[in-house]
Amino acid sequence: MDKNTLQVVPLGGLGEIGKNMTAVRQESGIVLIDAGMAFPDEETPGIDLILPDFSYLREHKDELKGIVLTHGHEDHVGALPYVLREFNVPVYGTKLTLGLVRSKLKEFGIKRGDLREIKAGDRQKLGGFGLEFIHVNHSIPDAVAVALRTAAGLIVFSGDYKIDLTPIEGAPMDLARLAALGDEGVLAFFGDSTNSERPGYVPSEKTVEATFKGIFEKAKGRIIVASFASHIHRVSQVVEAAKRHDRLVAVTGRSMVRNVDIARELGYLDLPSSMLVDQKDIGKVPDSDLAIIMTGSQGEPMAALSRIAAGTHRTVEVGPGDTVVLAAHPIPGNERGVARTINGLMQRGADVHYSPLEAVHVSGHGAQEEQKIVLSLLKPKFLVPVHGEYKMLKHHKDTAMSLGIPKENIFILENGGRMEFKNGEARRIENVDAGMFLVDAGAIADTSDAIMRERQQLSGDGMFVVVARVNAQNGQLLGPPDVISRGFADPQAENGLVDESVAAVTKTLERTAKRRITDAEALKKEIRKDLSSFLSKKTRKRPIILPLVVEV
Amino acid sequence: MDKNTLQVVPLGGLGEIGKNMTAVRQESGIVLIDAGMAFPDEETPGIDLILPDFSYLREHKDELKGIVLTHGHEDHVGALPYVLREFNVPVYGTKLTLGLVRSKLKEFGIKRGDLREIKAGDRQKLGGFGLEFIHVNHSIPDAVAVALRTAAGLIVFSGDYKIDLTPIEGAPMDLARLAALGDEGVLAFFGDSTNSERPGYVPSEKTVEATFKGIFEKAKGRIIVASFASHIHRVSQVVEAAKRHDRLVAVTGRSMVRNVDIARELGYLDLPSSMLVDQKDIGKVPDSDLAIIMTGSQGEPMAALSRIAAGTHRTVEVGPGDTVVLAAHPIPGNERGVARTINGLMQRGADVHYSPLEAVHVSGHGAQEEQKIVLSLLKPKFLVPVHGEYKMLKHHKDTAMSLGIPKENIFILENGGRMEFKNGEARRIENVDAGMFLVDAGAIADTSDAIMRERQQLSGDGMFVVVARVNAQNGQLLGPPDVISRGFADPQAENGLVDESVAAVTKTLERTAKRRITDAEALKKEIRKDLSSFLSKKTRKRPIILPLVVEV
Repeated sequence: MDKNTLQVVPLGGLGEIGKNMTAVRQESGIVLIDAGMAFPDEETPGIDLILPDFSYLREHKDELKGIVLTHGHEDHVGALPYVLREFNVPVYGTKLTLGLVRSKLKEFGIKRGDLREIKAGDRQKLGGFGLEFIHVNHSIPDAVAVALRTAAGLIVFSGDYKIDLTPIEGAPMDLARLAALGDEGVLAFFGDSTNSERPGYVPSEKTVEATFKGIFEKAKGRIIVASFASHIHRVSQVVEAAKRHDRLVAVTGRSMVRNVDIARELGYLDLPSSMLVDQKDIGKVPDSDLAIIMTGSQGEPMAALSRIAAGTHRTVEVGPGDTVVLAAHPIPGNERGVARTINGLMQRGADVHYSPLEAVHVSGHGAQEEQKIVLSLLKPKFLVPVHGEYKMLKHHKDTAMSLGIPKENIFILENGGRMEFKNGEARRIENVDAGMFLVDAGAIADTSDAIMRERQQLSGDGMFVVVARVNAQNGQLLGPPDVISRGFADPQAENGLVDESVAAVTKTLERTAKRRITDAEALKKEIRKDLSSFLSKKTRKRPIILPLVVEV
Repeated sequence: MDKNTLQVVPLGGLGEIGKNMTAVRQESGIVLIDAGMAFPDEETPGIDLILPDFSYLREHKDELKGIVLTHGHEDHVGALPYVLREFNVPVYGTKLTLGLVRSKLKEFGIKRGDLREIKAGDRQKLGGFGLEFIHVNHSIPDAVAVALRTAAGLIVFSGDYKIDLTPIEGAPMDLARLAALGDEGVLAFFGDSTNSERPGYVPSEKTVEATFKGIFEKAKGRIIVASFASHIHRVSQVVEAAKRHDRLVAVTGRSMVRNVDIARELGYLDLPSSMLVDQKDIGKVPDSDLAIIMTGSQGEPMAALSRIAAGTHRTVEVGPGDTVVLAAHPIPGNERGVARTINGLMQRGADVHYSPLEAVHVSGHGAQEEQKIVLSLLKPKFLVPVHGEYKMLKHHKDTAMSLGIPKENIFILENGGRMEFKNGEARRIENVDAGMFLVDAGAIADTSDAIMRERQQLSGDGMFVVVARVNAQNGQLLGPPDVISRGFADPQAENGLVDESVAAVTKTLERTAKRRITDAEALKKEIRKDLSSFLSKKTRKRPIILPLVVEV
């Protein structure tokens, strides 16, 4: 790699929502921008969480100089403990970001984290790169964009952003600094695409206040507000509304309690102890004097609100007279869980407020007009849309083209796609490996696809175990084989499939005995073949068949 | 049951979307309104489809006099073959509804169906009830509401409806007839609640035409439109747009081909043979002269459009220059699959049009203002909101209350909830059994919950099979036990969990041998207990453990 060359490799966050992580590499070393995780879905059953495949970092182990975090959300910091287990490098982030990270590392038993606090406006040197942090608005305080002065030129990572001119806390996004960077000359911009399908502007966080005001004024009993645990702004809005309406505040849900503690401690949340009710004392406060903040806005089965909706929460119940606010949009894939929660709460008699029927939430990602403002100020020569499914990256591209950025200067990459910048030019070079690392049973799992397919097959079609005892000399079956099914159909079911399977296996083994087959592997193969064909003919299903031959 | 009493029992469609079915019973017999199915979700892995639990009909077998269908959608007719297998009763429906049903019964090998065609405006006698059919608008032609003159008074079932004053085909909903029924005096109304969360009016089907016009004018290559197979109106709009732009039409996707055939044959779709291109000839027509209609608007993995997006369709490919329209809203739960389809198509270079970015679809269910019109015309004494999750039923109730219908005259029921009407009064009486019948491996499965839980456990945590050969006399282990896992973790994985499991089971059996335990059941119990505790301690997972003891 020569001195004037820069490579940028997004390892996650392209063609998907989540697990954002990008490696920036030049001769002097590699800097990693963000280390996020993604949540498992129906294609990854039983998985704890999903990380970017960071084999690329393993291959360039000695080059990694540090990690820069744009903000404290899981899709930007959730992979950090797993990365730090393998690479002992410094981590740069703002106060709140590092506060959240510190608590996460503690959970993972990582003590040695070298965390270096920065703030918007700061400049740093790291691994031969010049780092600069620029204040942006997002759904968590203390979020920054990152500019890197590299051997090939100035590149900018937006992180997650929106332009909020009346933010709940802090200043509007630092558009002036973006303009100055634009004048300096931006070689490449890696811009957030999450909301690029949406025309116009995303409303200010401030607009949610009016909705909360109306709800708090009307409410007579308890008020419960569920939000993302990381949405400190929303929590702050609930606290402010509670202050105005003389309500005390309780916090429940493990991650919500943790984040509220961190935000209070670091000064991001003005919630005096005198207002705070301990979870165990919730029952002692009159309903009309209490607001409870909790997790569960996504209908996650184990979250506080979901358990209240199902009537299985240890301490909190809701009923007629109580008010519940789901202050978040459902993330795609969570719609059914969210609806289940709303239905459960309403069935218990609660007055439930939710999106899109009411303006109880606004997005933290800028829409098309905001993307245009940022692109117009930065005037990047090259654009790489990041953070988003293909359709979002594509819409971001269309928006940029509408501003006159030439088509050939916009690169839609996939994870592992590699850009090389040199002498003011950009080109794609060979991809690196970048699938996903699955965290299963607490650790990064080695093989993944085969097990995932197996779990899906088990869940759809179940499993048959066949145990046959055969005479080792002549292959004769000793007694009827045992057939046990799991997840297939009730063995008591009328159709008697298990009995028929026993008969089918017996027939197979009578045939093999005639042919004097005694090899266990050969017998297993025959059993699997015949039983599979019998079952699929009979039921159109293909359960996993596990034949066991015991030779006596 | 006395002569003046009426019971109404919704067996499905309450607290859920789908499997609509309601039994109406008086001394003279039972009439069933609709016989719908629902689609399986993540809580019913491997299930083919879900039917209402119709044990209630089995218990009153001799009373069932007939089935009345409001329209031809699966959530209203999909359970019919299963019901007709057990009850040989006449089925009433309009021409298109029966056309679709006939083809369905044929697939199921049911020949004896006694199908009786009716049309809107008709009156019939059935089982002592007076039936009347009223024309409504919906996303399929030939939909009707049903009024029943009963021993207790006049009751009305809306079926699925919207009010479309400029429909694609046929007349607007027969509001005049609803007004006349209102004047006659409606005792109870069972009204569609699907869209009751939505304020205002649903736009006319006509509005989609303008969107299609714009798309057809701009398109240069092939145009592909995906829709619900049952959405004959949408198909008709594509055909009309194709006529205006001199394009031929091809149809692909099994259910789409079937429904188009039926609609053409019965006169609901004006698609002349001269315009129709056979699937196998798609490649022979220049791209600019072709529009293809297919299934896959919901991202269903096996549907035509999904396979094209994935590049696995046998005959159709898309690329730059081609235009694809997903002319449907994603049904809750399908969002990810739909996004996957859009992403795949865009990645192949197609110009993709979809909701909500463009007005390519309108709902077939009336919103709040339409519900108000119908309620105002019918002036029912009692309202039972039907077709919908709890939150939808509740919003329907709120809408009715805003019109002055007293709270205590509105009944939100669950499936199996039973209303009794007598002397102008209504009351809830004891519920009947009404869960769901799961169709698994082609037949109604007997037990369901246990198998569903087992499949979910298999899919999340996998399975361990342990085979131990022991001496029948003293319980001594004969050689190391075999441990095989499926869906758990790769046996080759570093952590060597399988090896450790072999050691754990060996230890268990050494201990039992010392205690001279030889009973196979007792040994299995010990193995299961120890291995389960070992694995959950080690991995926090609880795989299904299947111990097999072979006594030699």
